Amino acid sequence: MTINESSSGVRKAAVLVAGSWGTALASVLASNGYQVSLWTRNEEQAKEINGTRRNAKYLSDAELPVGLTATTDMETALAGAELALFVAPSGAMRQVAGQASPYLGKDTLIVHATKGFETDTLKRMSSVLAEELGRPQSSIVVLSGPSHAEEVIRKQPTTVVVASEESDKAERAQDAFMNNSFRVYTNSDVVGVEVAGAIKNIIALGAGLSDGLRFGDNAKAALLTRGLAEIGRLGAAMGANPLTFAGLAGVGDLVVTCTSTHSRNWRAGSMLADGSPLEDVLQRMGMVVEGVRTTRAAYELSKQYHVEMPISTQLYAVLFQGKSPEDAVGELMGRLKTHEIEPLA
Amino acid sequence: MTINESSSGVRKAAVLVAGSWGTALASVLASNGYQVSLWTRNEEQAKEINGTRRNAKYLSDAELPVGLTATTDMETALAGAELALFVAPSGAMRQVAGQASPYLGKDTLIVHATKGFETDTLKRMSSVLAEELGRPQSSIVVLSGPSHAEEVIRKQPTTVVVASEESDKAERAQDAFMNNSFRVYTNSDVVGVEVAGAIKNIIALGAGLSDGLRFGDNAKAALLTRGLAEIGRLGAAMGANPLTFAGLAGVGDLVVTCTSTHSRNWRAGSMLADGSPLEDVLQRMGMVVEGVRTTRAAYELSKQYHVEMPISTQLYAVLFQGKSPEDAVGELMGRLKTHEIEPLA
Repeated sequence: MTINESSSGVRKAAVLVAGSWGTALASVLASNGYQVSLWTRNEEQAKEINGTRRNAKYLSDAELPVGLTATTDMETALAGAELALFVAPSGAMRQVAGQASPYLGKDTLIVHATKGFETDTLKRMSSVLAEELGRPQSSIVVLSGPSHAEEVIRKQPTTVVVASEESDKAERAQDAFMNNSFRVYTNSDVVGVEVAGAIKNIIALGAGLSDGLRFGDNAKAALLTRGLAEIGRLGAAMGANPLTFAGLAGVGDLVVTCTSTHSRNWRAGSMLADGSPLEDVLQRMGMVVEGVRTTRAAYELSKQYHVEMPISTQLYAVLFQGKSPEDAVGELMGRLKTHEIEPLA
Repeated sequence: MTINESSSGVRKAAVLVAGSWGTALASVLASNGYQVSLWTRNEEQAKEINGTRRNAKYLSDAELPVGLTATTDMETALAGAELALFVAPSGAMRQVAGQASPYLGKDTLIVHATKGFETDTLKRMSSVLAEELGRPQSSIVVLSGPSHAEEVIRKQPTTVVVASEESDKAERAQDAFMNNSFRVYTNSDVVGVEVAGAIKNIIALGAGLSDGLRFGDNAKAALLTRGLAEIGRLGAAMGANPLTFAGLAGVGDLVVTCTSTHSRNWRAGSMLADGSPLEDVLQRMGMVVEGVRTTRAAYELSKQYHVEMPISTQLYAVLFQGKSPEDAVGELMGRLKTHEIEPLA
């Protein structure tokens, strides 16, 4: 009971790191009565959060709840935490997890809400966490679903899923996050939830590209439909339950990411449409655009699993091979099969 | 060869009636080289179309192609037509088909693009057409998919499906409508395509209600996800192929109808959100809002097929039983299952 302070009646949680989604989920936990440590590498950001109750770069005008404290000290962040939520960008997850590992309690519930693959290894985030934290992958929980941070922090009604192979872990996460405006469902399909969350960012880039080129809503809906099929094919090949893709983490998240002005990936895609080089777009965004990194991973995964992924392939050509957005979207729209229904896998 | 004028090299098609979707599809056929007769009951509208090449009430500023002629005379409309496209509102389909029946050639391909059920009988449109035209239901083709008329008439890229139990009929329709900006896939699942097209209008009403109440994009995505499940449950009970709902006529059409400002059903829902009575909303719309009629049919079908349809049921309560939109949407968001994945049927 020296480290875990539950004897005092205070329930502690740690959230790493303080981007928009991490800050929003930290706010949900704080609203639910947790004392939340929000870890960030950035001293200025920690001071801003603690001093002004704002995280202006990521969630401009939202006021953060009392009970949420930012810190740059990993040991302080994790001391006594019964739940540790990892929301680092996919490219930083291994490093952040490695840094956190020594300070995690044996019973601390590990949850992540990061949408992407590790680029070099093509591993899913639950796998990276399991390796760095020395825990069975089955114990890791992933949280996903249609959930713009900007709306979550304003307590607009939101529904998500938490998935883990160990149902008691998923249920602990459900209890921790659930409240009146944040509804949490459980699911056991970690592969499906992680693949859907990652790949939808590529489809959102494509949707932004299509909208930037003023192709219209009909074209975007067709792209989204084919995107869902593409997610389903890769997911099925990797062992997912196809029904996951018809749910919140699948079609739900895909829709919200492709059609909302809040979406970072959609915005990046719409900027690429005017022919701006990728480097310029990323600089203007000033935040991680997971879809760009994920496009590279999906391109490799489609080869590894022998799965046809036309949207990811066209995006790869635009992002990394100098193909024009017009040609890429035109090719996607023009691709013709006679029959619509084809086997998923 | 007296009635069918294909000996002259002219291919004729008839479209009934001249609403926005009928006019847009007539324009596709005219662009593909057909001589198209667009039938309307309304003399003024026929004069406007022939005199100004506009159909201002339904497609404000779009110029209609040469090769499209409006007429109020059914015999003239159907003389020599190798294809007859029925796009009457669901409530008028039986009457229009009955009026057309005597003038249809034996080999005329029958296609419809109407999204709804016959309210009193709960029959699908292919069934109504088969009865009134004295043809096997298997020969009827349904055309559906994510396709706002306003974009089709401007030749923005659009993809749809044509479904018929007789594959040669679906292929004839595919050949007739297919062009560079209007891509047509075939499918054999008439039940699935018709059910998806009808029920999505109810979900769009609900999405409009949710948006009108400013619930946000997260809530709308959750509603849409549950709506897809609701469509799938009814469709499966009626004998549809579940994969149809993951395709263009399912998720594709659902997305475009729930997220686009073009959608009539979405607009009606958003007007209902401020508490306006249904009669006022319908009067302000000035056009048929299929979702209203379909809500009544879906309510009855859910009882007939013992299928849970929470969104349709809540919409029924708002439209016809005086329930407040806040209570209905609140109840939909609050409904909680512990696990996300449940059997489709």
